[in-house]
Amino acid sequence: MSFFFKNCIFLMLVSYSLAHEDLNSHIFPRPLIIDYPEGNEFRLRESLEELRLQCTSWRFAAETNNLSPWKTIPQECAGYVEEYMTGRAYGIDLERVSKEAGNFAKRVELKDDGKDVWVFDVDETLLSNLPYYSQHGYGLEIFDHAKFDQWVEEGVAPAINSSLELYQDVLNLGFKVFLLTGRSERHRNITVDNLVKAGCQHWDKLILRSSEDHQKQAVIYKSDKRDEMVKEGYRIVGNSGDQWSDLLGSSIANRSFKLPNPMYYIP
Amino acid sequence: MSFFFKNCIFLMLVSYSLAHEDLNSHIFPRPLIIDYPEGNEFRLRESLEELRLQCTSWRFAAETNNLSPWKTIPQECAGYVEEYMTGRAYGIDLERVSKEAGNFAKRVELKDDGKDVWVFDVDETLLSNLPYYSQHGYGLEIFDHAKFDQWVEEGVAPAINSSLELYQDVLNLGFKVFLLTGRSERHRNITVDNLVKAGCQHWDKLILRSSEDHQKQAVIYKSDKRDEMVKEGYRIVGNSGDQWSDLLGSSIANRSFKLPNPMYYIP
Repeated sequence: MSFFFKNCIFLMLVSYSLAHEDLNSHIFPRPLIIDYPEGNEFRLRESLEELRLQCTSWRFAAETNNLSPWKTIPQECAGYVEEYMTGRAYGIDLERVSKEAGNFAKRVELKDDGKDVWVFDVDETLLSNLPYYSQHGYGLEIFDHAKFDQWVEEGVAPAINSSLELYQDVLNLGFKVFLLTGRSERHRNITVDNLVKAGCQHWDKLILRSSEDHQKQAVIYKSDKRDEMVKEGYRIVGNSGDQWSDLLGSSIANRSFKLPNPMYYIP
Repeated sequence: MSFFFKNCIFLMLVSYSLAHEDLNSHIFPRPLIIDYPEGNEFRLRESLEELRLQCTSWRFAAETNNLSPWKTIPQECAGYVEEYMTGRAYGIDLERVSKEAGNFAKRVELKDDGKDVWVFDVDETLLSNLPYYSQHGYGLEIFDHAKFDQWVEEGVAPAINSSLELYQDVLNLGFKVFLLTGRSERHRNITVDNLVKAGCQHWDKLILRSSEDHQKQAVIYKSDKRDEMVKEGYRIVGNSGDQWSDLLGSSIANRSFKLPNPMYYIP
């Protein structure tokens, strides 16, 4: 419960300061906070418990791909998402996904033709942009392409450690590793630098968006690239990504692993 | 926090009484509860907060289809899952899914050939077996086919009200409604009785497992049946189900809606 008290003031400020923006009002019944507390600790607790319940429900809906495309997190859940991302919950969720994926990878019997592939997305899968999003409301601000590009060009995104462990594990098991990212081809060099700095020492392909891919929805672009892998004779055994558009579409993997990401949605 | 205090004794009993069963130990790091409380309220709170964190993480992994097939919920999460199912959280999650699905359905432009279809699963989608599962540990006991069949044959499963609203909405919008269930063809009559009793007044097809379908995995059986719909010229616009095996495979819907169900997993 302590988290809620810590974040109470922040939540109140956010709720009121943004009361006139209504970006995702279709997602969230309003108002969530009725009769905001007036020195009544019991009612404060009840209100905050209600907020946690609603934001957990929103996160469930987001992570199971039940929501229509959303541009920002619900204002009311700003504090909830921040706490999730910066507290232990995000890390625990990431570790569980990597552990499940690793257990699956170990049980796969690889053929000796070198055609068994594990596909990894990059952003919020191998690399974390949390330092960027922490400066942009953890998904509360509408995505700003120019600003995000500036961040990418710094090349300092840290590794997601549990994903890095899975990455090493599947390489050691003999999988080919293909990195399939929505980043632009013009960011190839800085992405390579960043990946190496973060601890990814080897991969078999790094696929970025070329100019003809830029108009495609992510789910189409990534499906097209997986279709090409299959045409080249590869078997896509595993796929790790934080967006459903990394995982769904055509040529889907034998098993797909959805990493948590309540901050943004890419269709 | 009140929920955790209420359930504390129950959780302790469950944790200890089942300490020697180890059905899903691969899913869950053990022990979750270190130094169980000895009259120290602060440490009790910390332990219970930790348990909530771990069980929420397990539920995220289950609902996003990240776990390998599981036969029971983790022992430690027995109280968590009970509270989820019997408190407000399950209902809130169900309502959100139906609301999202309804919003999507309203935006679809139906053709006038009567070939736009919405597929519904039955158990834990239109009908609730919570009265049964409440007597069987909310997923803590291994599934017992004979006992569950007895329950099905009573024909008294209540409706999931938010799904029933969606059901009426899509019918009113002009969708064909196909019910696609893993129940056996021999339960057709009782299933019809139960659905009518629960408020489903009309459907266009009710597809149950025939004898040749019984050996198939659910995801194959349901894909086969959707393939047939597509061959007959139907367009599967929406699909509502509590299992990923209701939603994935071939001939998937334009949009699929995953209802919550942390109690059991059908591959």
